[in-house]
Amino acid sequence: MVTGIIGAAGYAGAELVRLLSAHPRVKGLSLGSVSLEGESIEKVYPNFLGKIPKPLVKPEDVLASSDLVFSALPHAVGEPYAKACMDRGLNFIDLSADFRFDEDEETFKAWYGKGFEFPELRKRSVYGLPELNRGRIKSLSASGPLIIANPGCYPTGASLGVFPALAKGLSMGSIIVDSASGVTGGGREPQKAFHFPECSDSMAPYKVGAHRHTPEISRTLGEMASRYSQTAPPLIFTPHLAPMNRGILSSIYIPLKAQWQAPALTRAPRPPSKEIEAKTKEIRDLYADFYRDEPFVRILPEGVFAATNRVRQSNYCDISVHMDQGGTTLIVISAIDNMVKGAAGQAVQNMNIIRGFDECEGLGAIPALF
Amino acid sequence: MVTGIIGAAGYAGAELVRLLSAHPRVKGLSLGSVSLEGESIEKVYPNFLGKIPKPLVKPEDVLASSDLVFSALPHAVGEPYAKACMDRGLNFIDLSADFRFDEDEETFKAWYGKGFEFPELRKRSVYGLPELNRGRIKSLSASGPLIIANPGCYPTGASLGVFPALAKGLSMGSIIVDSASGVTGGGREPQKAFHFPECSDSMAPYKVGAHRHTPEISRTLGEMASRYSQTAPPLIFTPHLAPMNRGILSSIYIPLKAQWQAPALTRAPRPPSKEIEAKTKEIRDLYADFYRDEPFVRILPEGVFAATNRVRQSNYCDISVHMDQGGTTLIVISAIDNMVKGAAGQAVQNMNIIRGFDECEGLGAIPALF
Amino acid sequence: MVTGIIGAAGYAGAELVRLLSAHPRVKGLSLGSVSLEGESIEKVYPNFLGKIPKPLVKPEDVLASSDLVFSALPHAVGEPYAKACMDRGLNFIDLSADFRFDEDEETFKAWYGKGFEFPELRKRSVYGLPELNRGRIKSLSASGPLIIANPGCYPTGASLGVFPALAKGLSMGSIIVDSASGVTGGGREPQKAFHFPECSDSMAPYKVGAHRHTPEISRTLGEMASRYSQTAPPLIFTPHLAPMNRGILSSIYIPLKAQWQAPALTRAPRPPSKEIEAKTKEIRDLYADFYRDEPFVRILPEGVFAATNRVRQSNYCDISVHMDQGGTTLIVISAIDNMVKGAAGQAVQNMNIIRGFDECEGLGAIPALF
Amino acid sequence: MVTGIIGAAGYAGAELVRLLSAHPRVKGLSLGSVSLEGESIEKVYPNFLGKIPKPLVKPEDVLASSDLVFSALPHAVGEPYAKACMDRGLNFIDLSADFRFDEDEETFKAWYGKGFEFPELRKRSVYGLPELNRGRIKSLSASGPLIIANPGCYPTGASLGVFPALAKGLSMGSIIVDSASGVTGGGREPQKAFHFPECSDSMAPYKVGAHRHTPEISRTLGEMASRYSQTAPPLIFTPHLAPMNRGILSSIYIPLKAQWQAPALTRAPRPPSKEIEAKTKEIRDLYADFYRDEPFVRILPEGVFAATNRVRQSNYCDISVHMDQGGTTLIVISAIDNMVKGAAGQAVQNMNIIRGFDECEGLGAIPALF
Repeated sequence: MVTGIIGAAGYAGAELVRLLSAHPRVKGLSLGSVSLEGESIEKVYPNFLGKIPKPLVKPEDVLASSDLVFSALPHAVGEPYAKACMDRGLNFIDLSADFRFDEDEETFKAWYGKGFEFPELRKRSVYGLPELNRGRIKSLSASGPLIIANPGCYPTGASLGVFPALAKGLSMGSIIVDSASGVTGGGREPQKAFHFPECSDSMAPYKVGAHRHTPEISRTLGEMASRYSQTAPPLIFTPHLAPMNRGILSSIYIPLKAQWQAPALTRAPRPPSKEIEAKTKEIRDLYADFYRDEPFVRILPEGVFAATNRVRQSNYCDISVHMDQGGTTLIVISAIDNMVKGAAGQAVQNMNIIRGFDECEGLGAIPALF
Repeated sequence: MVTGIIGAAGYAGAELVRLLSAHPRVKGLSLGSVSLEGESIEKVYPNFLGKIPKPLVKPEDVLASSDLVFSALPHAVGEPYAKACMDRGLNFIDLSADFRFDEDEETFKAWYGKGFEFPELRKRSVYGLPELNRGRIKSLSASGPLIIANPGCYPTGASLGVFPALAKGLSMGSIIVDSASGVTGGGREPQKAFHFPECSDSMAPYKVGAHRHTPEISRTLGEMASRYSQTAPPLIFTPHLAPMNRGILSSIYIPLKAQWQAPALTRAPRPPSKEIEAKTKEIRDLYADFYRDEPFVRILPEGVFAATNRVRQSNYCDISVHMDQGGTTLIVISAIDNMVKGAAGQAVQNMNIIRGFDECEGLGAIPALF
Repeated sequence: MVTGIIGAAGYAGAELVRLLSAHPRVKGLSLGSVSLEGESIEKVYPNFLGKIPKPLVKPEDVLASSDLVFSALPHAVGEPYAKACMDRGLNFIDLSADFRFDEDEETFKAWYGKGFEFPELRKRSVYGLPELNRGRIKSLSASGPLIIANPGCYPTGASLGVFPALAKGLSMGSIIVDSASGVTGGGREPQKAFHFPECSDSMAPYKVGAHRHTPEISRTLGEMASRYSQTAPPLIFTPHLAPMNRGILSSIYIPLKAQWQAPALTRAPRPPSKEIEAKTKEIRDLYADFYRDEPFVRILPEGVFAATNRVRQSNYCDISVHMDQGGTTLIVISAIDNMVKGAAGQAVQNMNIIRGFDECEGLGAIPALF
Repeated sequence: MVTGIIGAAGYAGAELVRLLSAHPRVKGLSLGSVSLEGESIEKVYPNFLGKIPKPLVKPEDVLASSDLVFSALPHAVGEPYAKACMDRGLNFIDLSADFRFDEDEETFKAWYGKGFEFPELRKRSVYGLPELNRGRIKSLSASGPLIIANPGCYPTGASLGVFPALAKGLSMGSIIVDSASGVTGGGREPQKAFHFPECSDSMAPYKVGAHRHTPEISRTLGEMASRYSQTAPPLIFTPHLAPMNRGILSSIYIPLKAQWQAPALTRAPRPPSKEIEAKTKEIRDLYADFYRDEPFVRILPEGVFAATNRVRQSNYCDISVHMDQGGTTLIVISAIDNMVKGAAGQAVQNMNIIRGFDECEGLGAIPALF
């Protein structure tokens, strides 16, 4: 049985090829590309030399030969392939946003400029954040082929950082997610913003108040909140571009309900008090408890800050839990590798769930040290 | 007349040497160093080869030969030099934190581990943020030698980004400042956190809820607020280390009073509405108006985001003004070069004010493009 | 009188705008662009905000209003502008390669794919490497308008590193120049090779044995050799792309004539012997002597290695002189800022010579420390 | 059976821990550290969190519990551990230089400042470059425990780039190796040279004519030459520091014997002629033939240049073969990951050989794309 990837030559697609090539349970790969059909992926990425000699084929040919298909195509072009897969009984794991708003076509349309081509497909689709929907993925999978809407990179790191606060009812008011992404997040196509001299040795925000991952994060937080009968929190999200290849660091500000606060003793800010440290520990323990069975979420011990170089090339989401000096706001830092947990790795994790493999198969690497 | 610099071999000191060497009104320099006395600064930084042939001297010798002294010594060691300068009638521009908390010894002690050695010096000291205290610097200077407490790097970028919102009474509730700094902010001394393989190609926060620039920002915002009969806002500040040499980018979240909000039409986030764009423009205009006479603050036009590479090697603070998708929160991005407006350049600006030079003398360079 | 720049929106052009804006003898600027006519350069580079408010005009309009014109247009398109300048009596400083091969149209054609449009212009043109041709620039300038062929970036660093060895007759056999350039060398246009994720955190060569700066370096070395009745050395040149914004580091291998060698005592390599150190010092002194009157060439003292961060943002060429462990080969390291001494700064230096200004006017900055 | 690592907390040691943790044939690890005994490696590198919970032990304890020991200790301190291993019958794979000069104590002493402590150990030691000594490693291993002198990082990339030229008798005269290394090559200890602001965004050489990898490369090339009855070539080696985390790129200049040259048709350099392209192809084929059975050496096809980001995180040595424009000199570019093929990966490759595993076990990853 062969695993298919369409859109294999883009960054997320190629990362997927690399991960699946090392996956002990995946035997053959069929790689498709619309724009580079007939070319070798080795030519686009000499990293693959000697490893992936077969040329890229048409997406149709991938579908014809595979028993599960990953799609790393751009947004808003992949629905017909999803349809074709459903028709043939093939699972479809989609890294684009096309199926991330299944209950809300209006929002999808507002941000992606197009409505649903095959609305009925949404009956078989699920948002593929295992920490949120593992159960649903399994149950839906049991009843036939399904579509996984693999989450966006920012939404993965942001949601995982907020979930326990929602589940435990700690938060009150607007949540702010301030994130910085590596430049691979912009994809393989050269553009001015990602031209080395324009972005190296510099930090800049982009699409402030206007990034389409905002509704995705918002929706995901709302879903978690509703499971615990909490109100969905208003969300503010700001993305930045950092001069690094990979990784997303999210600094998340969660205003605490009164009983979770550790009020300051003086008006002028002071180094963290024992009360603040105690409250922080209490909340850190709640976080650790919430994720105690999750293989890819690590709640860091006191004194260790989440950092992108500590999850590099891995499927981990590292989370460190802190509190502001005034004791009113929880500050959660989450770090993921945007290409792994934020894209290809999470897609593999979803495949593992669907196929009934150990969820860590092919994803067990210790994060690269440098 | 000679201008003196003590602590000249550290990063901020050396940057000051470089700026003053190109200053058209500064004739001679006397450079002092405690740890490298007798050495040449050319040896520490071959950049200076052929330009600064004189050896570094004892701080005492700098004081003896100068008519104004900059101090780029570490925190908590420079008070005796400040005292000596006052006694001799020399202006003292201090890049350390020693005089930044003149009205609040307790707070200084809580964060810097030591009280005031010469409390009476505070009668002649002023916090040297020209955009806040230009008038006070001038008037104090008119009556004798003074001490300038040159602001910290984070406080400069943060305060300038918040001031207009306070002055115009836009804000309500806690203000969050989320900042990323280049590695020069850590100084010249090699440390694990700044070892290239430990920080390159990565983003990480540090001292979350525990950075001593928090009380400095808080104090400065409080002062501006009180001038306009506003309440001092609670402050939350998180610093990050970004893999770049210079620059500080601050993303600032300011909850707006009801009349400044532009409420969202739907519950799910939407791309910015016309109402939000109009409100943002209104606030951007207020910002521009507030800084209309400031030579070093640029309010960026719509569509341009503040970025550290756009102020590189310059004394500018660039500010871009945005609003969140929900219309409730003002998002201000400020960018400075941490070594210039955040340290040495601002010190030169203060010298220009004290000496009655054009405030832009020696600071007029267009930001380096790369 | 106004100074004109055509091709002002490219990287070299914009750097020129920046340098000329700070030049004390340059009063007005007229900026032209073929592709961005009517646009503001502030829009392309927000660095310029508030500094260069005038829109870019047609090249023709630049010529009409200027008394000296810099051209930072691409190769092989600027001859008509050079012609027009000569016809109007305007000096023309050309940053492209169009006039760098004036005695050898065949070689130019072989590498740039086109012959000379106006061959007669070569009577008024000179290769603008001041360390080679200062005298000729001055004398030609005395007799009317002239064309400066501003040298390429690699040729500048390479030639300056080799000149003294040729002039003093030290070398024998092929000279190897192994260079690494910052990514600004590739220009403003986004391309795959300069896409951040493709070149950051990596080193790679390009155009090995096939870079068109090879004939330029070769020609320049030949000219210097012939002045000292030496044979022109065969040249091998390899360029690399390094993950940095600016700078070119050239490691140059010059086989020494027998009398300049310091033969090894053992067959197995040993740490440098006293004999090698003595010979190296002797040659270093020759280098220092050769450049003793040059304002922008620094021969570094023993123990200091040329490095691009020591000439950053400056017009310096730093040179360090070493010998291999076997005592047979001189190893010279030269470092320049590719955008300054390798492009815009050298063009300004040429303007200073032509206009009779101090050669350092507007170029005196100490290299940026970070 | 447990595999031991002493010096496990340094960069090479930690990389080894990471590789061995993912090795399918390695069951348990025993990790030792002299300076961090009792500490957890998770504390030094949070990357390991949850993966390596055991504390670091004394080296002696590692020896007591292991059946094979890797040593990533600094140079010149590990001989006693090697001795102890031999005495107990344990294989010892040494990443330091201590056993790399077994036939030449004088050279070792000249560069490492100390003679051999246990000279007799050299009877059981072998230079562990599999492409040179695979046979000897196997045969020595068959007769009892042995010591592997794992090659230096620069020597690995340099030697592999030169071997075929020596074996096929192409070269004549001095060979020049010009290399650039990532900063991890400097190790975990913070030092000024590796302080981010001192080395980022910059290129610089170091120890020109004085690096102790020169005798190691020289020795290794001599050994290969002698096997093919060729003369050992004189060697010139220059290391550089590049602003990247990992990788070594070596640009190697090999003067060709007359029959391998493709003389230029004109004196001025020209783009590569058909003759040069043909000769280059011929030599490239020889290279490919030489390495046809090597699992970790890839001879790149025409038009692809070796680059460090194409071997990132892998055990590959990529080699591209070129010729200079004059047709006299072979230019070989080799790229390795300094921490993998240049250190820990090669050590694992050696272990695989000794233990009779497939040589690629645990080393089969496709190079990381970013």
